[in-house]
Amino acid sequence: MAAVPTLARRIARSGVRPLCRWPLAWGRAARQPPGLPLAPCRAFSNNKILVELDESSGVAMMKFKSPPVNSLSLDFLTEFCISLEKLENDRACRGVIFASAVPRIFSSGLDITEMSGKSMEHYAEFWRAVQEMWLRLYGSNMVTIAAVNGSSPAGGCLVALSCDYRIMVENPKFSIGLNEAQLGIVAPFWFKDTFVNVVGHRIAERSLQLGSLYPAPEALKFGLVDELVPEEKLQEKAMAVMAQWLALPDHARQLTKSMMRKAVLDRLVAHREEDVQNFVSFISKESIQKSLRMYMEMLKKKKS
Amino acid sequence: MAAVPTLARRIARSGVRPLCRWPLAWGRAARQPPGLPLAPCRAFSNNKILVELDESSGVAMMKFKSPPVNSLSLDFLTEFCISLEKLENDRACRGVIFASAVPRIFSSGLDITEMSGKSMEHYAEFWRAVQEMWLRLYGSNMVTIAAVNGSSPAGGCLVALSCDYRIMVENPKFSIGLNEAQLGIVAPFWFKDTFVNVVGHRIAERSLQLGSLYPAPEALKFGLVDELVPEEKLQEKAMAVMAQWLALPDHARQLTKSMMRKAVLDRLVAHREEDVQNFVSFISKESIQKSLRMYMEMLKKKKS
Amino acid sequence: MAAVPTLARRIARSGVRPLCRWPLAWGRAARQPPGLPLAPCRAFSNNKILVELDESSGVAMMKFKSPPVNSLSLDFLTEFCISLEKLENDRACRGVIFASAVPRIFSSGLDITEMSGKSMEHYAEFWRAVQEMWLRLYGSNMVTIAAVNGSSPAGGCLVALSCDYRIMVENPKFSIGLNEAQLGIVAPFWFKDTFVNVVGHRIAERSLQLGSLYPAPEALKFGLVDELVPEEKLQEKAMAVMAQWLALPDHARQLTKSMMRKAVLDRLVAHREEDVQNFVSFISKESIQKSLRMYMEMLKKKKS
Repeated sequence: MAAVPTLARRIARSGVRPLCRWPLAWGRAARQPPGLPLAPCRAFSNNKILVELDESSGVAMMKFKSPPVNSLSLDFLTEFCISLEKLENDRACRGVIFASAVPRIFSSGLDITEMSGKSMEHYAEFWRAVQEMWLRLYGSNMVTIAAVNGSSPAGGCLVALSCDYRIMVENPKFSIGLNEAQLGIVAPFWFKDTFVNVVGHRIAERSLQLGSLYPAPEALKFGLVDELVPEEKLQEKAMAVMAQWLALPDHARQLTKSMMRKAVLDRLVAHREEDVQNFVSFISKESIQKSLRMYMEMLKKKKS
Repeated sequence: MAAVPTLARRIARSGVRPLCRWPLAWGRAARQPPGLPLAPCRAFSNNKILVELDESSGVAMMKFKSPPVNSLSLDFLTEFCISLEKLENDRACRGVIFASAVPRIFSSGLDITEMSGKSMEHYAEFWRAVQEMWLRLYGSNMVTIAAVNGSSPAGGCLVALSCDYRIMVENPKFSIGLNEAQLGIVAPFWFKDTFVNVVGHRIAERSLQLGSLYPAPEALKFGLVDELVPEEKLQEKAMAVMAQWLALPDHARQLTKSMMRKAVLDRLVAHREEDVQNFVSFISKESIQKSLRMYMEMLKKKKS
Repeated sequence: MAAVPTLARRIARSGVRPLCRWPLAWGRAARQPPGLPLAPCRAFSNNKILVELDESSGVAMMKFKSPPVNSLSLDFLTEFCISLEKLENDRACRGVIFASAVPRIFSSGLDITEMSGKSMEHYAEFWRAVQEMWLRLYGSNMVTIAAVNGSSPAGGCLVALSCDYRIMVENPKFSIGLNEAQLGIVAPFWFKDTFVNVVGHRIAERSLQLGSLYPAPEALKFGLVDELVPEEKLQEKAMAVMAQWLALPDHARQLTKSMMRKAVLDRLVAHREEDVQNFVSFISKESIQKSLRMYMEMLKKKKS
């Protein structure tokens, strides 16, 4: 895998520490009868991501907590990679559930401010972090479940697509999709490959060209998400699905997962620097910068 | 891309000219309140294809008008390529809608008389024209919508499959499919690739082996067409869908389309001459010629 | 294609002989009015597989008769390859229907006793026979229909997936799927490729990781089987579907089938010995051997 020196340095100097130990107030553990001993649980947090690992079940909860919209900034991505790597290397952890701690949004996707008005070096560093996030998540040995408790456009959708299973809150106001084309930008080939692997070529072709965002019920229809549940059942459902996946022997499941995803992962690994250069030269075009500025203006107006 | 000297020469000497300027009596423009100025519109026609470009919307209408069944003869294919290239190079044109001006048939596919009782050179020239048509249409930068207002077997189905979107008249008497096997011939690998990209591997495998033609309602079920409408709503619907696709920034949509289709386009470009030779040696076999003669006899009997 | 000397020798010395000639008491032939002359029919049998060829229709019936569960032992696979090759080389035969002569089970898949407590040489010989079976069946020029009259896990599912069409008895107690992961083993890449070609990438990824077995009605929903019928209608239906496929000219159907399957077949041919070595080194691991012993213990306890 191509070296990612800057991100590696960021990870090294971050020194994320377990903050405390507390019971996992979540899912099955939370519904234990009072008085019973709670499962041992470690948690660590940093600025933007909260991680809780329930050692008895081997399941970690990773919650995105970067208001207002959990956008995937360089800082967020760095912390995401660090957190995921810690869990990947922790033999007590076999599965991770991803959810948002911010109401109504899972993640809004790549942080546009990282792609606008910055240096070429910054764009390259940012893009390597996006690649790194996907390579680690799509290639994770752990069972990964997206508990999509809010809208999830663009990069947020990619996070969900890269998991093994997607459960979404059945709220039609929450939408999901790779809508990059709407912003005048283009999803890179590995976003596309991941999407095609989930929904097939035709739906991917049409959806990517139109930059379609699908309300949860529509997303379910063609398999962009695997099931819908009421918001109050999401955590319970995610834990039940996780238990089903963890019932399989790890080594067989991991080898199978790798067999299914290797071709697509290898493709980015083989073209990683080329992909960075493509991104940098595309995003630094004045026409693209103008599109992004207009889009940000529109977002600001919407808010006020 | 391999040189196609003969087709190029045909295109060069054809000198298709704009015939006149008239309002686009079609879709939204046609329903403008009387008295309002009509959108400027250019039309050019030749023998077999009628093209109308509405400069205000950027949408061209290409109508197949080669009775009795719009078969894809060498002349038709040449005119198709010329017309498409003119639009592709016209900055006023951003999208094309394809429909038939012949009742009950969109296109009957490749003209069998071009494949029967002719010289090897003729077969080769014909096949290069078929390839050229597909390369230009599947690789078009414009938004392409098939308004399938009649049956569309074999090469007619390929034309529809190569567009971005397919709307079909909801008449169960109109059928669509790649039925080459029924004629004792074989759809080439790029017909197959295009088909797989739309309906997936399993349905393509089964349908190609059986040479299946699907009535419109069945074709909708597995995505061979995207939607059905009553015949009188077809033009309105095609315009509405076109407007939806044109709402996206061209550059993002074009790059995305190219990303989705490049692998399959490149495959023919890389094996183009080999594919011509395969076709010529296959079609000039006496057993295949006999099949085609029998098929044409059957068609004649059906008519009389 | 890589040499498979041991299997070839087994085939050579087997000398399977036609046992007798009798009328095909099956399907349409069986329902002929009494008094009419029956179609000429040859049958040959060996220990585990019964083959009947109806020369008038060109359809052979291959019945698996290896109680208790038609497991794919080295002997079974050898006889399967011999029988299939005989039919492939018999110009009177154009299609084969596969079914079980054992109640409630189509085939239980690879024989675990061939993978447990044996020598490396044995594992390699066994795996080559599994490869050979798939290469011959998936690449067959004949029309192949699986009449799945019982459960069909793992390798049994592969046999069905490798056919052109799958009809299953509509009994929800009969299940089908590639459940290798449940046993702690991994379906090889060509099982996966065959599966993906039938159900698409997403369903294959999820099902293979979970080792899912689907009751017949669920298997129908996502196309793992093509249709369900009551058990008493299975043979009639299989013959009717076969007649539909045989209505196409053989050469066009065969070339089309080869075009659809060649890439996946070529991939195993190109990596055949590597795949054998992977299997041998995986299966001879002590941890895997232990899993298989535990699984066999569980099966024994279930029975008693």
